[in-house]
Amino acid sequence: MKYCSQCGSVVILSIPPGDNRPRHVCTHCNLVHYQNPRIVTGLIPEWQDKVLLCRRAIEPRRGLWTLPAGFMENGESAHEGAAREALEEAHARVRVGALYTLFNLPYINQVYMIFRGKLLDLHYQPGDESLEVELFEQQQVPWGQLAFRVVQETLSLYFQDRERGCYTPRSGTIERVEGMRSQYRTLMLEEC
Amino acid sequence: MKYCSQCGSVVILSIPPGDNRPRHVCTHCNLVHYQNPRIVTGLIPEWQDKVLLCRRAIEPRRGLWTLPAGFMENGESAHEGAAREALEEAHARVRVGALYTLFNLPYINQVYMIFRGKLLDLHYQPGDESLEVELFEQQQVPWGQLAFRVVQETLSLYFQDRERGCYTPRSGTIERVEGMRSQYRTLMLEEC
Repeated sequence: MKYCSQCGSVVILSIPPGDNRPRHVCTHCNLVHYQNPRIVTGLIPEWQDKVLLCRRAIEPRRGLWTLPAGFMENGESAHEGAAREALEEAHARVRVGALYTLFNLPYINQVYMIFRGKLLDLHYQPGDESLEVELFEQQQVPWGQLAFRVVQETLSLYFQDRERGCYTPRSGTIERVEGMRSQYRTLMLEEC
Repeated sequence: MKYCSQCGSVVILSIPPGDNRPRHVCTHCNLVHYQNPRIVTGLIPEWQDKVLLCRRAIEPRRGLWTLPAGFMENGESAHEGAAREALEEAHARVRVGALYTLFNLPYINQVYMIFRGKLLDLHYQPGDESLEVELFEQQQVPWGQLAFRVVQETLSLYFQDRERGCYTPRSGTIERVEGMRSQYRTLMLEEC
């Protein structure tokens, strides 16, 4: 960020009065431009003992499989956003249920919210951002070709929970291992 | 938003190719400036059968009571943010537990995440943004002087769940009743 989006003047990094971290502050109108994490909202669309996955037609991770998910928009709720993404990426009509996983990705300032949900019919097909859309039983999930760590973690927890007959919502953080662009570590938040 | 934060040129509202809603797009460098909901993260700090509330020293709702909560920052997790807010607003050291409520406030583009948590000692005191900080039993909670609907909903659910001995995480949406600045309606997401 170099210019003020309100008046077009140059911004500098400085700590505003009463604050404790550097912000982009306008040198002319003094407006403070806060930057905050963005929410990615998505769901696990269930059909009987299968889940719906999409093969990405876009970067990053083109060609790899993921759950329907995308940036939450202003004016919608997280579960409305998850349903919208299912429709956009897979032409899938879903009923969104409880929040299942909440994952923080602080290295890219994103928070993933993945809900459970029911696929309402089988008339799904690839949207513009998907190459393929398919239902997978647990054994058929392409574990080695999942696009994102957050998808892998969510699906592992999901199938473990399904096995024991009880879905427990969970929060965690995925960190990038320092200096290693594609190595990650997952830390789950302990209940207290 | 009137100017591009990258090049300082004028932005216009238009629908970018492949998109389906108007965005602020730079007339010079074509950068698309997305605007997304912000996360407010907070917690219910528990001490025995009491909960810690703060009386706000700042607008909006100065003088009314609230849970420690504030905007999540880049580079932190939601639960780290909740612990930071408890420290800033109440000098309270806490251990953050499971996510308890997720509330969408689409009329102001905010998503509240409220965790349960344990207060670790009794050395709390008002931070810069609080007039008072106090522990309340259920019967003593100042129900008529709570700052925000989201706090009222979360605390009601919390005490109901405590009564029945089981805390169930929940998601919902708080909407502003059309044309009524301070009337709200709450819609809880049904499990499926």
